Amino acid sequence: MRIATLSIGDEVVFGEIIDTNAPFIAARLYDIGLKVQRHLAVGDVEQDIIEAIRDLATSCDAVIATGGLGPTIDDITARAAAKASERRLALNDMALAHLTEFLAKRGRNVSPANEKQALLPAKSGLIPNPTGTACGFHFQFNSCLFVFLPGVPSEMVRMLGETVIPLIGERRTQEKFIRIKILKVFGVPEAEMDTLLRGVAEHGSQVTVAFQVAFPEILVKLRAEGDDERETVLALDSACLRAREILQGRIFAEDEATMDTVVAALFREKGITLSLVESCTGGFVAKRITDIPGSSDYFLEGAVTYSNTAKIRLLGVSLQILDEKGAVSSEAAMAMARGMRKQSGSDIALAVTGIAGPAGATPEKPVGTVFIALATSSGCQAKMYRFAGNRGDIRTVATFMALNWLRRHLLSL
Amino acid sequence: MRIATLSIGDEVVFGEIIDTNAPFIAARLYDIGLKVQRHLAVGDVEQDIIEAIRDLATSCDAVIATGGLGPTIDDITARAAAKASERRLALNDMALAHLTEFLAKRGRNVSPANEKQALLPAKSGLIPNPTGTACGFHFQFNSCLFVFLPGVPSEMVRMLGETVIPLIGERRTQEKFIRIKILKVFGVPEAEMDTLLRGVAEHGSQVTVAFQVAFPEILVKLRAEGDDERETVLALDSACLRAREILQGRIFAEDEATMDTVVAALFREKGITLSLVESCTGGFVAKRITDIPGSSDYFLEGAVTYSNTAKIRLLGVSLQILDEKGAVSSEAAMAMARGMRKQSGSDIALAVTGIAGPAGATPEKPVGTVFIALATSSGCQAKMYRFAGNRGDIRTVATFMALNWLRRHLLSL
Repeated sequence: MRIATLSIGDEVVFGEIIDTNAPFIAARLYDIGLKVQRHLAVGDVEQDIIEAIRDLATSCDAVIATGGLGPTIDDITARAAAKASERRLALNDMALAHLTEFLAKRGRNVSPANEKQALLPAKSGLIPNPTGTACGFHFQFNSCLFVFLPGVPSEMVRMLGETVIPLIGERRTQEKFIRIKILKVFGVPEAEMDTLLRGVAEHGSQVTVAFQVAFPEILVKLRAEGDDERETVLALDSACLRAREILQGRIFAEDEATMDTVVAALFREKGITLSLVESCTGGFVAKRITDIPGSSDYFLEGAVTYSNTAKIRLLGVSLQILDEKGAVSSEAAMAMARGMRKQSGSDIALAVTGIAGPAGATPEKPVGTVFIALATSSGCQAKMYRFAGNRGDIRTVATFMALNWLRRHLLSL
Repeated sequence: MRIATLSIGDEVVFGEIIDTNAPFIAARLYDIGLKVQRHLAVGDVEQDIIEAIRDLATSCDAVIATGGLGPTIDDITARAAAKASERRLALNDMALAHLTEFLAKRGRNVSPANEKQALLPAKSGLIPNPTGTACGFHFQFNSCLFVFLPGVPSEMVRMLGETVIPLIGERRTQEKFIRIKILKVFGVPEAEMDTLLRGVAEHGSQVTVAFQVAFPEILVKLRAEGDDERETVLALDSACLRAREILQGRIFAEDEATMDTVVAALFREKGITLSLVESCTGGFVAKRITDIPGSSDYFLEGAVTYSNTAKIRLLGVSLQILDEKGAVSSEAAMAMARGMRKQSGSDIALAVTGIAGPAGATPEKPVGTVFIALATSSGCQAKMYRFAGNRGDIRTVATFMALNWLRRHLLSL
């Protein structure tokens, strides 16, 4: 099955944005055993879109296009698709009904600009968009299935999963069984992963191992492909077992789970409550904890003690510690965690203090120096880290490390 | 001049990595007045690369290709380029000399795998690579200039700037002046932007207006193109003036500036200090404030008062307010802001409380109900919002709205 993606938008071809839709679609198709052969991107130029569609119609079995379905005048994908495939552009009643209902829920009426979003090529199948105004559509042109989705990533992702993947899946000519497992790893240098996991793929030739860095995580993708379902599943399971033995606690999540959801599930399971004090991460840890619905069940409060005054007043960190050891010290981190645990009454309290830069470094404490402390009923411990990178990198990895501390503590690792 | 980029690599078409080379190249060309017409990406498949090169040779004046010049067996770009353009593959003495010298400096000898990197299509011009082993090359095929660069972004970026941009620049047939202005807007529905800004482009036909949604922002891109530099600048300035008159305070930043940098610059300029109390945004506002280097100069502290106990103890919000009006109320928001301002000693304090969902809604207060309050020396004000979307959307837009309050307050809007 020859598959292409087509990204439509001036912002893509002029390099104003980085197209994440095409690789996302390709990766999702790869997961079900389909390889995308090429990506094409063109601007909001009718003739270019028409030519692209006609070219792809002669060389592909399926094309997934994104972009240009919005309400503004430069959104011309539906019109170009109609012209390319010699269809009329017609008001689609279902798309209009969706639009009307979607906007009504938000207290708005359908404007002429929105109405344009219901003008679709005749005889298209509709692709529902649960989270936006632009419905997608699909049609057959020559022997190629064309699918058109909005370019807004969150809308595209949902429509792809709910409608397009099943639609494309139906058309697969050869059935191979493919099973995939993603292990998410933190704390292993990328260059060491190859060596570490060398044995995992050799044992079963059906299984391949690939790595992908998603800073600060490394995703290990185990993929088994075979003619027999049971054998494929067994091959993957056995490769997984070996990888888990090697990586152990450095695997923090698998598949759809994330550090945030894993930590949330552990707090819920253990019935433990949490409070936070942040300095260099400035609320980033609290933000990630509260990203998860229902976090109010275990997260009591957070403090962003940017000023020393706040550290002293709120948490009872002593002036002596701040003067002698500095706000970025193991002693300060522990005092912050202890102070917060005491005043919030939470079971555990975590503190982060550090130098995210670019300013604030000293010879003993370069940019990237971060202390994390955890106070529990059985005491308080702290550790120093030296993280590399710019301010954003340091805050990101310090936040991730703080969440990983919580995870390891809750798992008694 | 019709220009395309061509990205070569399985990792690109299978969606294992996000291709940042193509948009980078497009953006650099756009800066010198050249529009890329399309991006194409193919895998490490000889036939696919050959077809892509032949297709592009008939429809483009210049093609900039990246990827597939490395030492491993799946790097086959040079061979495919030679076949596509019917050239021999020949050992390039200069490329070999570069390789030898580059590796010698690092105490290594040329391996057969490396030597392959000096096998280039005959009669190609060499493109030096100061930071890697893979030289680039260029040749004319039909009437199209083909340029091949390595896919490693840091190497590509340098070679593009030092050799390729001048090379392409020479071939520009017509010199047009291009000037761009980006206005970043918050608080106007996308569907209304077209109507609002209709007059802006009509006044001067040299100017085009495009929109791009980067939730919750809308970017308005004004672009002037003309033969005369002064006229082009004047046309853009005058379109900008009209757009600013129409949008006024809803433009929160221009060009490279962001909401975060604008707010930071205002705090610095006014010498005003800030504290924050967050409930539904859970630290997201503090995170964005502290994303900016030097924010400790004006940001004193933040509190994430997720539990009612924390609201009462930390901020002196009365039990009566929480009982009668609820934690999500104008009264609670104001009490939180006033309490934080008093205890932190900051000039202004901002509070956010709301229902991000999915749980926690009541008939009077559906998911998306958010109160923001600002306490200053001249009093305290609060406002209710109803934001749409999922938990993430609501938290994002509430955070953005909070930052926008700070901006408008500091600008006395």
